[in-house]
Amino acid sequence: MGNQIRLGIVGYGNIGRGVQTAVKKNSDMVLSYVFTRRNPETVQVNDDSIQVLHVDEIEKYTDKIDVLILCGGSATDLPEQGPQFAKLFNTVDSFDTHARIPEYFEAVDAAAKPNNKTAIISVGWDPGLFSLNRVYGEIALPQGSTYTFWGKGLSQGHSDAIRRVPGVKAGVQYTIPIEEAVQRVRNAENPELTTREKHIRECWVVPEEGANLEEIETAIKTMPNYFADYDTIVNFITEEELKANHSAMPHGGFVIRSGQTSENTNHVIEYSLKLDSNPEFTASVLVAYARAAYRMNKDGQYGAKTVFDVAPGLLSPKSAAELRKELL
Amino acid sequence: MGNQIRLGIVGYGNIGRGVQTAVKKNSDMVLSYVFTRRNPETVQVNDDSIQVLHVDEIEKYTDKIDVLILCGGSATDLPEQGPQFAKLFNTVDSFDTHARIPEYFEAVDAAAKPNNKTAIISVGWDPGLFSLNRVYGEIALPQGSTYTFWGKGLSQGHSDAIRRVPGVKAGVQYTIPIEEAVQRVRNAENPELTTREKHIRECWVVPEEGANLEEIETAIKTMPNYFADYDTIVNFITEEELKANHSAMPHGGFVIRSGQTSENTNHVIEYSLKLDSNPEFTASVLVAYARAAYRMNKDGQYGAKTVFDVAPGLLSPKSAAELRKELL
Repeated sequence: MGNQIRLGIVGYGNIGRGVQTAVKKNSDMVLSYVFTRRNPETVQVNDDSIQVLHVDEIEKYTDKIDVLILCGGSATDLPEQGPQFAKLFNTVDSFDTHARIPEYFEAVDAAAKPNNKTAIISVGWDPGLFSLNRVYGEIALPQGSTYTFWGKGLSQGHSDAIRRVPGVKAGVQYTIPIEEAVQRVRNAENPELTTREKHIRECWVVPEEGANLEEIETAIKTMPNYFADYDTIVNFITEEELKANHSAMPHGGFVIRSGQTSENTNHVIEYSLKLDSNPEFTASVLVAYARAAYRMNKDGQYGAKTVFDVAPGLLSPKSAAELRKELL
Repeated sequence: MGNQIRLGIVGYGNIGRGVQTAVKKNSDMVLSYVFTRRNPETVQVNDDSIQVLHVDEIEKYTDKIDVLILCGGSATDLPEQGPQFAKLFNTVDSFDTHARIPEYFEAVDAAAKPNNKTAIISVGWDPGLFSLNRVYGEIALPQGSTYTFWGKGLSQGHSDAIRRVPGVKAGVQYTIPIEEAVQRVRNAENPELTTREKHIRECWVVPEEGANLEEIETAIKTMPNYFADYDTIVNFITEEELKANHSAMPHGGFVIRSGQTSENTNHVIEYSLKLDSNPEFTASVLVAYARAAYRMNKDGQYGAKTVFDVAPGLLSPKSAAELRKELL
């Protein structure tokens, strides 16, 4: 117990609850503090060994926490919290706005490094395990092409977009990879695929009473960035059906690297995930990287890091000798 | 050119030739020396920029080579060459006798460390990329089971074993994963599988003239360690058929991790390789790890290392900033 890595989390949504669950599968770690922006008394964690505190109190706990896992969203929470808390704690987060990763990295690095903290950003499965497979694919097959397919899975961002359409009461969106495209990539055909050829978007929408369904469907299908470039299917259902059939948060996908080492000598590397719960799996990966953050900090590796900077062995509770004997 | 990593190789068999081919796809590296135990004049590398030298001369070249790639076999070559050359050079090898990895690691470490050399052992796909996926699978899903399936692919060791059977002139052996077992694992059934339930062994054998085919078949099928624990198929063919249909060295396989983050919440992670040429792919991975060995040595990380010790970013010719922007 005394040697356990002491974790705290900021934000108690799906990812935060997932971290709480994941820590139980990792006996070398313990979660004692949950920080929230809400009134702490309204947050039920169903575990007496965990203290729920207001995030304004967090500075008092720098000595009690080895790694702080940031469980906020990428849109507004993390851009602020990442740099703020990397000054005070070793941190791990799942910042997933791909296009803004470079600037986020710089901001977190500038906060962590002068304070001798280690902050691993953009951890999870994409970015995260998928990113690793994009790198391992490229280095194993320098001549080739990498393809990422997502799904079948519930996309939070696209579900939010649906719900902003006038007349929509509730709804979810699934991203579905197009099997024919996946097969062509697996067959080492190296196809050039448009956005529309890679994924379908399927929506399950609960309309407000009396709403014009045709207008909703058109509004969704023509929405720029989110739906206009895809073949989109819109299904209307009742609130009961939505609750009964679309409350889970499954996800997954594929990273495929196909390439040649010499003329006519083809190789295909495929990595795939089939996840019953996107937030629980993401949280489980976050917890493993918290172990690495702790060890890298002890080793004097300060500043912002990504999954590319973390030697795989640092993620495991097993010693280097055990890993060589059992898993190499 | 002046900034290229300078490689040498020891041993010019399938892997050595594969390294020569792979280096051409990596413009930041150059191969200038091949060391051989044979008479160098008998070794044709078909490239005037590469010098072929007897291995006894190797000590004269310590200043001219940044990383030496050891391309010998695991049975007798590497146990001797690994420690011997890790005293003089940064090295990378594909030592693949899983059971003997711990002692090999110790011997190479004892040679490399006091001489400020970096030696990455057991690189390739298994051990190598498969090992990485066994670790990444365990850390992402601490509660679960890992399965490794090999093939369909030509097994060098089992092909050698066939060829030692009296009456056998030539032959090859394919390891074939049993589709039903793979499917059960993919379906997160977490089955307990015996050796026989995971793989079939299929042999293509050219008998000596007048040999007793029944005796050969029995000798193969009952051979301990290699075949007795498997369902083995023995096919007899002519030398011409062997040459025409079984000269390639395809291989591949799967690493599947299936586990739960909470009750009834299942996840399946699958990594698969489909390789037209086992030695060319293995060699391509060796070359990428040579880049990492060079960088780790510059960074003062001396001694024996494995794929578990190598941060993924060190394998890529791209800078950390490029990797974050393009692949994270």
